[in-house]
Amino acid sequence: MSHGFALDPQLAADTTPVVDLPLCSVRLSADWTYPWLILVPRRADCSELIDLGPDERAILMEEIATASKVLKAMTDAHKLNVASLGNAVAQLHVHVIARFPDDPAWPGPIWGKGAPLPWDRLELADFTARLQRAFAEA
Amino acid sequence: MSHGFALDPQLAADTTPVVDLPLCSVRLSADWTYPWLILVPRRADCSELIDLGPDERAILMEEIATASKVLKAMTDAHKLNVASLGNAVAQLHVHVIARFPDDPAWPGPIWGKGAPLPWDRLELADFTARLQRAFAEA
Repeated sequence: MSHGFALDPQLAADTTPVVDLPLCSVRLSADWTYPWLILVPRRADCSELIDLGPDERAILMEEIATASKVLKAMTDAHKLNVASLGNAVAQLHVHVIARFPDDPAWPGPIWGKGAPLPWDRLELADFTARLQRAFAEA
Repeated sequence: MSHGFALDPQLAADTTPVVDLPLCSVRLSADWTYPWLILVPRRADCSELIDLGPDERAILMEEIATASKVLKAMTDAHKLNVASLGNAVAQLHVHVIARFPDDPAWPGPIWGKGAPLPWDRLELADFTARLQRAFAEA
């Protein structure tokens, strides 16, 4: 399934692992500013959604939906932002971000707005554990 | 299928119609700066992907893929950006944008970067007709 796949070093540096779903590795952004998941399909040589076949795209959509529901339930997000951009990091990845009217980029998109804020180590461990339980129950 | 659906007035003002697919109306952004399609599922009271059921999400993903292939083939895009944000306009809609290393926002996202540029009327009619042919053949 994951023949030839290796996580992009920049994506690895900007995130921490949460859980592996059948297609995607779910990772948490290292920027504490936003509750922000990144889904990375474990497929080599993919940068666009259309580099996946239709069956895998359908799985990806349902994994996006699962991540959306988990994040919304955990954060009571006002709005979810879902995006596959990849201008800076070509490896296919999908952002799922919880947005709030009082967050620093609202109502704009979050990318490129201010320096990332680090997580407190214990808070990161706690949030990751809660995410893992939520995905296990999803 | 479209019981109670009405296109958001802001989305209507910011786009022109291209084609109706089984789930989504495909519209072209009125901002000439980027080749930029917006897919609007004709479903009332949806603002998130997870407001659609799984069957409709699967259709949406394949309509996104079709729009992606059409736009990539027509523009030879360097990268596609696909996003469901909806912070400003709540009605569920998905952006499919052709990006180029020499476009004004590269490598950042396009939203909120500079004033929109109007289409030339003949160029808009020609591009729309070419899109319609490409969707008909897709």
